[in-house]
Amino acid sequence: MARERLVIIGGVAAGMSAASRARRMNANLEIVVLEKGADVSYGACGLPYYISGRVRDASELVVHTAEFFRREREIDVRLRHKAVGIEPGRRVVQVEAENGQRIEMHYDTLVLATGGAPEVEIPGSERGNVFYCGDLASAVRLREFIEQKRPRRAAIIGSGYIGLEFADALASRGIEVTILTRSEAMIDGLEPEIVAESERVLAAHGVTVLKRAPATQIAGPEGEPATTVQHGLAGSLATDLVILATGIRPRTELAEAAGIALGRTGAIAVDDAMRTNVGGIFAAGDCTEVQHLVAGCAAYIPLGTTANKQGRVAGENAAGGRARFAGVVGTLVTQVFELEIGKTGLSVEEARRYGFEAGSVAITSVSRAKYFGGKPLFVKIVWDKASGRLLGCQFAGEDGAAKRVDAAAMALQARMRVADLLHSDLGYAPPFAPVWEGLLIAAKEAMKQN
Amino acid sequence: MARERLVIIGGVAAGMSAASRARRMNANLEIVVLEKGADVSYGACGLPYYISGRVRDASELVVHTAEFFRREREIDVRLRHKAVGIEPGRRVVQVEAENGQRIEMHYDTLVLATGGAPEVEIPGSERGNVFYCGDLASAVRLREFIEQKRPRRAAIIGSGYIGLEFADALASRGIEVTILTRSEAMIDGLEPEIVAESERVLAAHGVTVLKRAPATQIAGPEGEPATTVQHGLAGSLATDLVILATGIRPRTELAEAAGIALGRTGAIAVDDAMRTNVGGIFAAGDCTEVQHLVAGCAAYIPLGTTANKQGRVAGENAAGGRARFAGVVGTLVTQVFELEIGKTGLSVEEARRYGFEAGSVAITSVSRAKYFGGKPLFVKIVWDKASGRLLGCQFAGEDGAAKRVDAAAMALQARMRVADLLHSDLGYAPPFAPVWEGLLIAAKEAMKQN
Repeated sequence: MARERLVIIGGVAAGMSAASRARRMNANLEIVVLEKGADVSYGACGLPYYISGRVRDASELVVHTAEFFRREREIDVRLRHKAVGIEPGRRVVQVEAENGQRIEMHYDTLVLATGGAPEVEIPGSERGNVFYCGDLASAVRLREFIEQKRPRRAAIIGSGYIGLEFADALASRGIEVTILTRSEAMIDGLEPEIVAESERVLAAHGVTVLKRAPATQIAGPEGEPATTVQHGLAGSLATDLVILATGIRPRTELAEAAGIALGRTGAIAVDDAMRTNVGGIFAAGDCTEVQHLVAGCAAYIPLGTTANKQGRVAGENAAGGRARFAGVVGTLVTQVFELEIGKTGLSVEEARRYGFEAGSVAITSVSRAKYFGGKPLFVKIVWDKASGRLLGCQFAGEDGAAKRVDAAAMALQARMRVADLLHSDLGYAPPFAPVWEGLLIAAKEAMKQN
Repeated sequence: MARERLVIIGGVAAGMSAASRARRMNANLEIVVLEKGADVSYGACGLPYYISGRVRDASELVVHTAEFFRREREIDVRLRHKAVGIEPGRRVVQVEAENGQRIEMHYDTLVLATGGAPEVEIPGSERGNVFYCGDLASAVRLREFIEQKRPRRAAIIGSGYIGLEFADALASRGIEVTILTRSEAMIDGLEPEIVAESERVLAAHGVTVLKRAPATQIAGPEGEPATTVQHGLAGSLATDLVILATGIRPRTELAEAAGIALGRTGAIAVDDAMRTNVGGIFAAGDCTEVQHLVAGCAAYIPLGTTANKQGRVAGENAAGGRARFAGVVGTLVTQVFELEIGKTGLSVEEARRYGFEAGSVAITSVSRAKYFGGKPLFVKIVWDKASGRLLGCQFAGEDGAAKRVDAAAMALQARMRVADLLHSDLGYAPPFAPVWEGLLIAAKEAMKQN
């Protein structure tokens, strides 16, 4: 009897999590991973630190090699194999192999983990000194470029958290960095107080931010590296190097062509078992939308940590299991130079956009006793005036700010009210915290308003 | 018309929180604080760091001086005034003033914040080189003693977290430290894996721990400083200095004499408004018991952070408000040399003692990316097999272990099940965390057992 075959399209976070989990569930399953690139299972979130040099070798970012998966987990990883079509009726994937050959591959179950692609296409992106922030091969080329060509100036297109992390990385190498961004808010959904603080820190490290300056063209002499970026402030920025960090959109072309339904956000719609609307086909990671437990609807929030969780659920279910992924509360942590930032749930503006009558309060507390290096800790909380329910929380500061978001994320998951936070039993000792945690102080202030 | 008078007995954490909150609530109230010692409102949790020298001056531990409370908050703080009796029928407190004079003071409402006293009385404690770990005056005398007499050896009686923090402080001054303890478990309720790790760290720093060695007598030549501590291992430890850190019991003598009911734990029983059983009398802080939300009953867990919260509630209600303190989940964080420890909820043993059929799982994860200084992170979780509910969580490690307890504390407050933790949306980025937080990995392991 032929073994059942699981085919997974995409071999980074979601894809390899799905493959590993499916193997755990079923030792007899045939598992094939089709990866169009040359690497699997790398930590894309570590790329900025490879550029800065903190990560010495690209191999440190590779969690497991393709060889490891083949040998240790009996997963048939095929690198440089691009899926170009799916026929759900025949349960077949069309694949373009490394040598250009087209093959047809049968599947019993299929997991789509096709990831994301740059959101904005900018003319001139094909020039040799233009790098995409999102994959390992591009990062390896970028570091080689920096070490060989010693560029003096860099233009980063996009001010999301990845753009800011690359700004930090390049500035730490002595490169003069300018960020070009369409938006006013920098990271989507970041509260204005934290945006202002981020700008202050960027400026202090010599990074220029041009807002409302969408890049329109990457230009230079015909067939040569780019020398300027034209942007919507009707200006032109001279540069030696361009980073594309405009955010990502879900890669859904394959899915759409196969009749798989997309959601309202434009990403693949999945239920809590990671099933698409087509029988036998699951999806996970940056190509899918995710249930936002605070907003109460689907959202597109591509993140490595979510991709890993979804991939695990998809892999378990593709192998006959019954796992469920409930959704996210919208947690994000990042660091821009010395400034740690943590966000969970909805910002004031997001809450209003989702139809809540939102109250908010911002306070500045302290991270721990001053004699243990305590620093100011900014905390902003957002709540629903109708129900008193916590809707979001953001932290910023130079000491222990980012991970403070975890307690708030749990409170959001549990749908706690602000009143429930007044006396939460969070850890206190001088090396770690003040007697009154910032979150509790913010809750007290909120209660005065409600 | 005479102003209403609130009298507060005790001027440290709970007492001064109550006084300040009552003043905020009612500008006209007369507020008198009777403090038997010479200081108010100091951070007792900072005392070990004053001994180590990290806190340079004792004044840094004083949040506000008596003078500040008098001037800025119109609170009549009377130092060196000892309450010696309460007559609830006449609403009168008997006070022994600084000069030995007895006065009677009328109250309309009364808050008892009498704190705790050393749990164990050991003969010989009155000798000049014996110091109590719990108050500022004793800590000031201790540091003077260390700086003037340069003791070579110290005996610490008790291995709770305060004993361990003092061991760290004294060892950092080059003093050879021996801890004498009755118990096997060191800190009450600490899981054995963390006890073992603490012992390893203490030994690495030259601290000796003698277990099952309760101190029975502090001895020395008549009228001279102590030279030995006799202990239950039938031994005698030579020392130049003794620290009493045997844990504290609630100071309830005044309350008992006034007919105020104690709870099952031996501390003053209060409801969630901090009311005692006697009309007009509230209590807060280390003299009271507290509702343990996980155990579902009262417990005695004296902690500064709880005292502050309870004090605030007592003060608000004593001034006519309607605040409530729901209780604690048993969170404790501490640091022993480089080892950070965090505990929340119940240990396996505590859970069984409270009647749960407890499951547990221990794993070792990592605090963050290795290239950001990540270190092993030990996580143990405890759950109720009948309901799947999380009952407790402990963390230990050298990097970011202690405050990771906060997310678990929120989960306990919300009565979450282990299954709810599988996909919790905790913050991930290489400078701060691994893709899978230790808590989530532990939850996954737990689900395999359940």
